[in-house]
Amino acid sequence: MSSSDIFIGETIGTAVLILLGGGVCAAVTFKRSKAYNAGWVAIAFGWGFAVLTGAYLAGGVSGAHLNPAVTIGLAIEGGTKWSDVPLYLGSQLLGAMIGAVLVWATYYGQFRAHLTDPEIIAAQPDDEGLVDQKAAPEAGPVLGIFSTGPEIRNTVQNLITEIIATVVLVLAILTQGLNDGGNGLGTLGALITALVVVGIGLSLGGPTGYAINPVRDLGPRIVHALLPLPNKGGSDWTYAWIPVAGPLIGGAIAGGLYNLAFK
Amino acid sequence: MSSSDIFIGETIGTAVLILLGGGVCAAVTFKRSKAYNAGWVAIAFGWGFAVLTGAYLAGGVSGAHLNPAVTIGLAIEGGTKWSDVPLYLGSQLLGAMIGAVLVWATYYGQFRAHLTDPEIIAAQPDDEGLVDQKAAPEAGPVLGIFSTGPEIRNTVQNLITEIIATVVLVLAILTQGLNDGGNGLGTLGALITALVVVGIGLSLGGPTGYAINPVRDLGPRIVHALLPLPNKGGSDWTYAWIPVAGPLIGGAIAGGLYNLAFK
Amino acid sequence: MSSSDIFIGETIGTAVLILLGGGVCAAVTFKRSKAYNAGWVAIAFGWGFAVLTGAYLAGGVSGAHLNPAVTIGLAIEGGTKWSDVPLYLGSQLLGAMIGAVLVWATYYGQFRAHLTDPEIIAAQPDDEGLVDQKAAPEAGPVLGIFSTGPEIRNTVQNLITEIIATVVLVLAILTQGLNDGGNGLGTLGALITALVVVGIGLSLGGPTGYAINPVRDLGPRIVHALLPLPNKGGSDWTYAWIPVAGPLIGGAIAGGLYNLAFK
Amino acid sequence: MSSSDIFIGETIGTAVLILLGGGVCAAVTFKRSKAYNAGWVAIAFGWGFAVLTGAYLAGGVSGAHLNPAVTIGLAIEGGTKWSDVPLYLGSQLLGAMIGAVLVWATYYGQFRAHLTDPEIIAAQPDDEGLVDQKAAPEAGPVLGIFSTGPEIRNTVQNLITEIIATVVLVLAILTQGLNDGGNGLGTLGALITALVVVGIGLSLGGPTGYAINPVRDLGPRIVHALLPLPNKGGSDWTYAWIPVAGPLIGGAIAGGLYNLAFK
Repeated sequence: MSSSDIFIGETIGTAVLILLGGGVCAAVTFKRSKAYNAGWVAIAFGWGFAVLTGAYLAGGVSGAHLNPAVTIGLAIEGGTKWSDVPLYLGSQLLGAMIGAVLVWATYYGQFRAHLTDPEIIAAQPDDEGLVDQKAAPEAGPVLGIFSTGPEIRNTVQNLITEIIATVVLVLAILTQGLNDGGNGLGTLGALITALVVVGIGLSLGGPTGYAINPVRDLGPRIVHALLPLPNKGGSDWTYAWIPVAGPLIGGAIAGGLYNLAFK
Repeated sequence: MSSSDIFIGETIGTAVLILLGGGVCAAVTFKRSKAYNAGWVAIAFGWGFAVLTGAYLAGGVSGAHLNPAVTIGLAIEGGTKWSDVPLYLGSQLLGAMIGAVLVWATYYGQFRAHLTDPEIIAAQPDDEGLVDQKAAPEAGPVLGIFSTGPEIRNTVQNLITEIIATVVLVLAILTQGLNDGGNGLGTLGALITALVVVGIGLSLGGPTGYAINPVRDLGPRIVHALLPLPNKGGSDWTYAWIPVAGPLIGGAIAGGLYNLAFK
Repeated sequence: MSSSDIFIGETIGTAVLILLGGGVCAAVTFKRSKAYNAGWVAIAFGWGFAVLTGAYLAGGVSGAHLNPAVTIGLAIEGGTKWSDVPLYLGSQLLGAMIGAVLVWATYYGQFRAHLTDPEIIAAQPDDEGLVDQKAAPEAGPVLGIFSTGPEIRNTVQNLITEIIATVVLVLAILTQGLNDGGNGLGTLGALITALVVVGIGLSLGGPTGYAINPVRDLGPRIVHALLPLPNKGGSDWTYAWIPVAGPLIGGAIAGGLYNLAFK
Repeated sequence: MSSSDIFIGETIGTAVLILLGGGVCAAVTFKRSKAYNAGWVAIAFGWGFAVLTGAYLAGGVSGAHLNPAVTIGLAIEGGTKWSDVPLYLGSQLLGAMIGAVLVWATYYGQFRAHLTDPEIIAAQPDDEGLVDQKAAPEAGPVLGIFSTGPEIRNTVQNLITEIIATVVLVLAILTQGLNDGGNGLGTLGALITALVVVGIGLSLGGPTGYAINPVRDLGPRIVHALLPLPNKGGSDWTYAWIPVAGPLIGGAIAGGLYNLAFK
């Protein structure tokens, strides 16, 4: 696979993944959205079909990793060359940032209405809230549209949750034999992967909001920090390393487990 | 593909698409419907499976575009002849109008009960409502069953939202290699497209109700204007050009992007 | 296909269809069920996956019609011999009755608790209710678990709704080329048919509860009339012919339309 | 298939099944989970996609039974050797216990917060509750995350419900011809099986919470008894034999029925 294929596939594919994934978070968060309060089933299917769409776009071009944890798992398994890893990861991060900007463009009016709503502004100091965007004391009310945050903040617990959920994801991808030479998801395989992601969201997303993908969290968090949004609150950088490290560790464990148990 | 195949496939397929798509809007809107208030998850899956049904009906006949944005994208990509485009678009518009009439026939009793309900009539001036059919000040309470309307009315924003959502749809269709010579969706491909539409609905439908298809909006709006319904309110023609222009622009961008990046 | 294949496949397949379909109605109706109040999305997916399960069980044996409207449509199209039609229909009716008895066995404790609950008994005269089992004035509170009933009672309207919904179903089956010689659904085809049924439920089920299958309504209604349930109310026989006639007419129209437009 | 393939596939596959299945129960039960109160649709899809994920992981290794009822049904049908049955069952039980421990690790913070919440502790004596974990008088409030319990406690009824639901599951697996020589689910077959499980959950899960798998219930119940959780309540051992015996009987009936009717 050529470098330009990797770059194009991973950048566009990850951008679409984050556009749709961040989009569903925006859709259920904003009062002036038709999907307001549509609930966790909407979130889980929204992210799953985001994976589906991104994977179909990029599958025939770059193999559609769209996730550094998948790339690491495949490199350990042998399906992806280590020398290609930096390009995969860089393209994924760039795509995730583009996707987050596109979420903002799609929901521009909702962001403006939400962030200038006196009720929303008054609610900002409330750091005990159960909803995603209030999980971090220093986080503004729209951070949950960009990045994940834990319901209960505890480094070890949060890290373990992200590791376990990512092992499931990457092991499911590796054992499907989806990646012949790191090049290309099968048509049905991408559908299965998407439904596995729905399942991980429904089942393991409760504690931390299931990043299971370092750039899915880091890319949009950088965009949150850079965007000139009024009253947006902090970007919760103290938590930011967990949804990066947890999925990377999980991807590596899955690659090793695959080599040990399934080869 | 013969002209009569295009005409039959696109007319019947689009009619079924709108019958089921408009149907789910009716199903959740009317109090005397068993699906009353079933929520946005029902809407998103309802429209997705409307695409699935229409695509299977028409796939082997006309290629099942069912959407001018798809036809434009395919014409730019080269899979559809420009000389066939007018017939595709005309058949799609006719089908969409037939579909909207069929929604009215299916929910005839509900339309009558709803539009003669004193509470509903009294509610008509309320132009701040969050529900779809109240999004436009001049729109009657049943317009949302026929056409889309924005939660926050702003030409540029609404247009951008429709463009972004349509680029995702058409790019997903083009990159699936579904259309060999513009003739025929693969069996699995139609399922994937349907689930991509569910995903777009969940994720990008919040601001404008995701027309992502010019005739999906224009055909039923014309039928709304023509049907002799009491208290139906206006057809919101000031907004009507956005869900036509946005998807057309989006389809063209997707076709160009595909030629640039994926060929 | 042998007569015994038809008999075994259609009887067992339809029994499973009604067991799961009636089951989801019981599941959301009874207070002492874990799925109580799970809503219309649960109903629509429950019936769709009931079709999936029954179709897979019977697909390789009898072709898995499971529905007289499908059998009639296929006979008109030519895929099924007219001489086989009576056996198909008889087996389907028998299977539907067996399925309804199995629903009762599965939810035996819930039926007993519900029908002897003083609040439920007191609620029986209420004939304006919006919930399914109260739609018919003379219908007891559990009829909705067995048979369909309209939200707004009007012969012509209800008949038209059932006809339109059945045309969509049967046309979708015919155009998929699922039935080579009336013998066997393709593997993916059964999945698509199931999702089309989910879509019909979400979109067109609001007014009448979408029988779209004569035995799905008649078989369980007979069982409701025969079962010795206390306080079960009437079986609403005045409505009973509509969900039989409507789907039969719809299946015939779909067969004719297929021959005219798609052959 | 070698013994080590059976051991690895069934242990890892069942562990993932229970991790995701128990996980969705935790996700909707705990207040400090993002999926709190997501409802029965989330539960049913969560368990279905748990089956999907486990089946894909183990399909190419051990045939992915993941369930003694499936193993018994296949042994009766002839697809699995009786001499392999003990290894299948032991591996499945071990995997189920590992999965339950992983649920606890994933939701560690939620367990701790929940079980030390004064309101939760005060609520413990309430044995009339409708929610899963309160169904058994002696059961603690988190038992429902590990094991099933009936809404209405009655040995014969509960047993019949589990038998019927398991017959549907195992018959659906046998008739799909998924298991050539007991070795390997087809790719699409595993998806269908997963959706059948969603359907069984929606339709037949109301009375007992659908164990339909002896180790799915027994393995986590043993872990519940062993884990040092404060205020966890009893493990409801008086009910424990029903979700073991019912599915085993159901699997045997399905195997016999298959041999009689479908061979």
